[in-house]
Amino acid sequence: MSLRGFRFAGVAAGLKESGRPDVALAVSDGPCAGAAVFTRNRFRAAPVLVSEARARRGRVRGVVANSGNANACTGARGLADARHMVKLAAAATEVPADEMCVASTGVIGVPLPMGKIQHGILAAAERLAHDGFDRFAEAILTTDKGPKTRIATLRLGRRQVTIAGCAKGAGMIAPDMATTLAFVFTDAAARPSFLRRVLRQEVTHTFNSVSVDGDTSTNDSLFLLANGASDAPLLGADDAAGEKFRAALREVLLDLARALVRDGEGATHLVRIDVVGAKTAEAARAIGRRIAASPLVKTALFGADPNWGRILAAVGNAGVPIHPGRVDLDIGEVAVVRGGVGVAAEDTEARAHDVMTRAEYTIRIDLHAGRAQASVWTCDLGHEYVRINADYRT
Amino acid sequence: MSLRGFRFAGVAAGLKESGRPDVALAVSDGPCAGAAVFTRNRFRAAPVLVSEARARRGRVRGVVANSGNANACTGARGLADARHMVKLAAAATEVPADEMCVASTGVIGVPLPMGKIQHGILAAAERLAHDGFDRFAEAILTTDKGPKTRIATLRLGRRQVTIAGCAKGAGMIAPDMATTLAFVFTDAAARPSFLRRVLRQEVTHTFNSVSVDGDTSTNDSLFLLANGASDAPLLGADDAAGEKFRAALREVLLDLARALVRDGEGATHLVRIDVVGAKTAEAARAIGRRIAASPLVKTALFGADPNWGRILAAVGNAGVPIHPGRVDLDIGEVAVVRGGVGVAAEDTEARAHDVMTRAEYTIRIDLHAGRAQASVWTCDLGHEYVRINADYRT
Repeated sequence: MSLRGFRFAGVAAGLKESGRPDVALAVSDGPCAGAAVFTRNRFRAAPVLVSEARARRGRVRGVVANSGNANACTGARGLADARHMVKLAAAATEVPADEMCVASTGVIGVPLPMGKIQHGILAAAERLAHDGFDRFAEAILTTDKGPKTRIATLRLGRRQVTIAGCAKGAGMIAPDMATTLAFVFTDAAARPSFLRRVLRQEVTHTFNSVSVDGDTSTNDSLFLLANGASDAPLLGADDAAGEKFRAALREVLLDLARALVRDGEGATHLVRIDVVGAKTAEAARAIGRRIAASPLVKTALFGADPNWGRILAAVGNAGVPIHPGRVDLDIGEVAVVRGGVGVAAEDTEARAHDVMTRAEYTIRIDLHAGRAQASVWTCDLGHEYVRINADYRT
Repeated sequence: MSLRGFRFAGVAAGLKESGRPDVALAVSDGPCAGAAVFTRNRFRAAPVLVSEARARRGRVRGVVANSGNANACTGARGLADARHMVKLAAAATEVPADEMCVASTGVIGVPLPMGKIQHGILAAAERLAHDGFDRFAEAILTTDKGPKTRIATLRLGRRQVTIAGCAKGAGMIAPDMATTLAFVFTDAAARPSFLRRVLRQEVTHTFNSVSVDGDTSTNDSLFLLANGASDAPLLGADDAAGEKFRAALREVLLDLARALVRDGEGATHLVRIDVVGAKTAEAARAIGRRIAASPLVKTALFGADPNWGRILAAVGNAGVPIHPGRVDLDIGEVAVVRGGVGVAAEDTEARAHDVMTRAEYTIRIDLHAGRAQASVWTCDLGHEYVRINADYRT
C-alpha cells in the first residue's frame, strides 16, 4: 500500500477465546491531525470518553484498539483501564499520551483483562510496520465474516495521496447496531478543523445512512487521521483539492458502510432504498431509515416477498408529511405502486419477486413533493439473524 | 352476557379462503354515543377516512367490519367501496347511514370483492342477536390464534353496567404493527365528549403502550359505543362514577392490548417493562418503547439470554437524558445492574436466565431521576416470526 508515514500492527493477546488477533495499534511517524465522531448513545463506553477529549484537541498521532471486550458499563474501573491503555500505547510508541486515542469492542459489562492487554500492546508496538494495515484491520473484528478495508488514491497538486480505511461491525445495522469501529488514515495534509468538518458531513451520507435514527451502540467510533506525509498541499475548505479529497473520503466511507450492511448477521440481500421527490434531504432520509428499520419490511426482503403494503406503511410512519395519493414505488425496474395504488398488471408481483431474489437491488420511492433525495442501505432479517442474536454469548 | 341493547353478528362471506367468518356487524337498538381513535399513519385506509368523519360527530349506532381485505391503498374505488359498505349496513339495519362506521383488515392494495361483501352484510343483518358478541369477535380476526374478548361489569348508581370489548391483531406489535381493530360496547350512558376524552387518555396507557413510537398500520381503529341501555346515570367527567367507569374501561383495554402482545406472531414470552424513577411519564414511556422495539433485545428475550448490555443500549438510545451511572436494572426478582454497572455476583446470569424462561415476567429499569413511571408490554422475536412474515401472502 502506498500510504506514507503510518505504521500498523495487529496481534493476538488472548482476549478472544478463538486465539484470533485482538489488539490493534497504529501510529504516525510524525505529527498528525485527527478528528473523530462517536456514538450518540447516552451510555458511552470508557474508551469513547477518553478518546473524545483527545480528538477534540485535533492532534491524534496514534490509536490503540482491542476486540473481544467493549470496556462498556464498567464504571470507574473501566475509565482507569481505558486511560491505562492509552498510557501503555503512548509509552511503547513514544507518542505523547494526549495524542493517543483508544477504542474497544466486544462484550459489555466485563472488566478488561489488563494483563493480557498490556502484553498485547507491547507486542504490537514491537511489530509496528508500514505494511501492517491488514493486520490492524483484522485485529478489530468481532463477529464479522471478514476484514473490511478500502483504499483510495488521488492526486492533489503533484503528489499522490492515499486514503486507507478499515471498519468492523456485523450486527444488523438497525435499529440497535452492534459496535461499529472505523479508522481512516491518510497522508494528505489537513488542519483538524477541515478534517472535523468533512468527517461530520460525510458520515451523514455514509455510516449514518446505514444505521437508523442515529442509533448507535455504547462504543461506536470513527477516526480520521491525516499526517501530511505525502507532501501534498494543505487542504482548504472550499478549494478544488478539498472537494476532491472529500469525494474520495466519501467513497471510502460509503464502501465500508455498505460492507457493514452486507456483512449483517445472516443478511442475504443488500438493498438500497432511494427516496426521491422529497421536500428536503432530511425528510427523504427519515423515510428511508424508517423503511430500513422495519422488521416487517426486512422479513419480507428475506422472503423476496414484494409486500409493498409494508413499505408504504413504513413511509406513512416516518413522521414526514406526504401526499399518499402521489407516492410511486419501484422494486428494481418494476413499477409496483403508482399514485398510492398498486399497479394492477398481472405479472407485477412475479417480476418484483424476481428482482428481490437478487443479492443486491434498489427500492425507489418517489414522493412527488419536491426535488430532494437520499439513499439508505439495509439488509434482510432472516433465521440466521435470530439464531445469532437469540444467544449471543454462549 | 349482560350487555343490554346491542345486537351482533358474524358470518362467513367468502373473503377468507379458509371459509372462516369474515363479516361482522353490530348495532345498538336505540340511539348511541360513540368515539374512536384511528391510526396516525399518513397512509389511511378508506374505512378509516369514512369512519373518522362519523365518529367525530359523536353518534355511532352501528359498526360493520370485514376481515381478509384491508381496503387500503385502493384509491378512489376503495373510498367508494367503504361508503357503499356503510350504506348497505345502514339500510339492512335501519340505522341512519351517518351513524354507521366501518373497519377493514387484511391484505393491502386489493379491491374489496363487493359482491361477497354485500351478501355478507345482508346475511349478518338477518342474524343479529343480543348474544352474538362472540361471533362478532371471531369475524374480525385474521392471523390471530383466537378471539380476544374481555367483559367487565360495574355498578353505577343502582344499575349494573357492562363493558364488552374485543380486538384483533397478531402482528408483532412493534414497530410496524399489523392492523389492530378493537370494538368496545357499553350500556353505560355517556356524552360523546366524555367518551372521547376517556378513550384518548386510556389508549395511551393500553394500546399505545404495546405499540411503539405511535406506529400504526393503515387501518388501526378503536371504537367505543355507549347506548345507555343500562339506565345508569349519565357519566360526567370528574365525578366518582366517571372515574369508576374509566378504571373499568382501562382494565378492558389493557387486557385486550396484552392479549395482542401475547398473540404476537411466534411470541413465546410476554414481558412487561417497568420504567420507574423518570422525570416524566413521557420519558419513561419513550424508554420503555425503545426497549420494547429493539430487535436485539427481542431476540435475546427469545433466547432467554440476560444480555443486559442490549437493554442499556436501548435505554441510551431513547432520546431521553439519563444519568448512566445511576441506572438500575432488574430482571424479575434478580438485580442485574446497579449504578450502570453489572452486578458481579456469580449466579446473577443463571438466575436472570431462569426468570427469562418464564412465559411472563417483568424487566424493571430505575433511572433514579424522578418519580414518574410507565409500563410497556412486549414479546420476543423468534424463528416463528421470521417464518410467518417472510412470506405472508403465499
